[in-house]
Amino acid sequence: MPAADGKTGGNMKKRKRFEEIGYEPTNVKELLTEMKDVSELITDLAYSAVIFDIKDIAEEVKELESRMDKLLYQIRLTAMLATRTVEDAEQFSGLLQVASAAENISNAAGDIIRLLDTKIENRPFLPSLLQKADEKIRIISVPEKSPMSDKTIGELNVEAETGVRIIAIRKGERWMYDPADSTILSGGDMLIVRGVDDGYIRLKGFAEGKRGLNNE
Amino acid sequence: MPAADGKTGGNMKKRKRFEEIGYEPTNVKELLTEMKDVSELITDLAYSAVIFDIKDIAEEVKELESRMDKLLYQIRLTAMLATRTVEDAEQFSGLLQVASAAENISNAAGDIIRLLDTKIENRPFLPSLLQKADEKIRIISVPEKSPMSDKTIGELNVEAETGVRIIAIRKGERWMYDPADSTILSGGDMLIVRGVDDGYIRLKGFAEGKRGLNNE
Repeated sequence: MPAADGKTGGNMKKRKRFEEIGYEPTNVKELLTEMKDVSELITDLAYSAVIFDIKDIAEEVKELESRMDKLLYQIRLTAMLATRTVEDAEQFSGLLQVASAAENISNAAGDIIRLLDTKIENRPFLPSLLQKADEKIRIISVPEKSPMSDKTIGELNVEAETGVRIIAIRKGERWMYDPADSTILSGGDMLIVRGVDDGYIRLKGFAEGKRGLNNE
Repeated sequence: MPAADGKTGGNMKKRKRFEEIGYEPTNVKELLTEMKDVSELITDLAYSAVIFDIKDIAEEVKELESRMDKLLYQIRLTAMLATRTVEDAEQFSGLLQVASAAENISNAAGDIIRLLDTKIENRPFLPSLLQKADEKIRIISVPEKSPMSDKTIGELNVEAETGVRIIAIRKGERWMYDPADSTILSGGDMLIVRGVDDGYIRLKGFAEGKRGLNNE
């Protein structure tokens, strides 16, 4: 059964389920919640991949895109099998409409990352252009002796304190996407974040030990 | 020429241009930036419309969706007319790929709001379900004598202070979508916001005069 709460689950965990497509009894509502979560994460990841030219993130987008295909298949099967009355059918039909929209969004994200298959010379102004949009995607490097080190994302309350969301973290060779509140930040991490200027400046300054996280 | 900066422009302004489709010389980059901005706003608005059953927001989604069709048409024309060399063509092709993805996202948002055409009894659990996703969309009512009154969104630095983004405001009978930093908040306003719990609680408490905006 998929975790409905992206925040506490994180994305690493989710991937292992549904290795092959088949009917697996599960809850339509949880499937839809996961689909909505993924549809939000995947576009951010797709833009990050193009802006910073990071193939690992593009790979994650491809995996999420194929996971979405499976989730859509799963939710359709589950809804059909659970339908007993006309009322059931009408209710599930609305749900499937949202599910299908979420899957379309993930396909659009998949189209975006296919840009990485073209030569980098052919997309010279795209990175800066995509960054111009009003909520900005950027990188923060956590230095070795950062005050951020050994703190969890939840403990720092990053998003509510700064308006900045951490969408991916590179720890050594490994990437984490949509990190959970319980994720521990460490020196050497590279964070891909999304958010407004002021919060970004504060979070970066804090990571670099130059200031507190709050606006004092 | 479309405003590239959603933040300072706001959405009311953008709508008047392109009443009919025709070639209008403009900048490919600015068109794409607007398309990306709209693709982000429109999904939030679509989910809000369904969660709170607000037809005005659904109407705005429809207008943005049709604006996106026009923007896509415009960017294709502009790119083709600006192409002189094979290199130009290769660069524009990447750009058009992102433009097309943004337009697909807006179509998905359009599919979501078409749920409002079905009877409300047929989508009883969808609102709560969509709210369960990790970043939440909710309503804040600004009381008549709120400390928020007569302040601009930029002055309060709402998003960077709380992690909460104001996606729409109802002022009397009138709706504003994607309000600019210069928008003045007033008693009686209804805000549709998107963000994490902690920030939402703070912003709501502040609106109601029960606490400061910061986490002191």
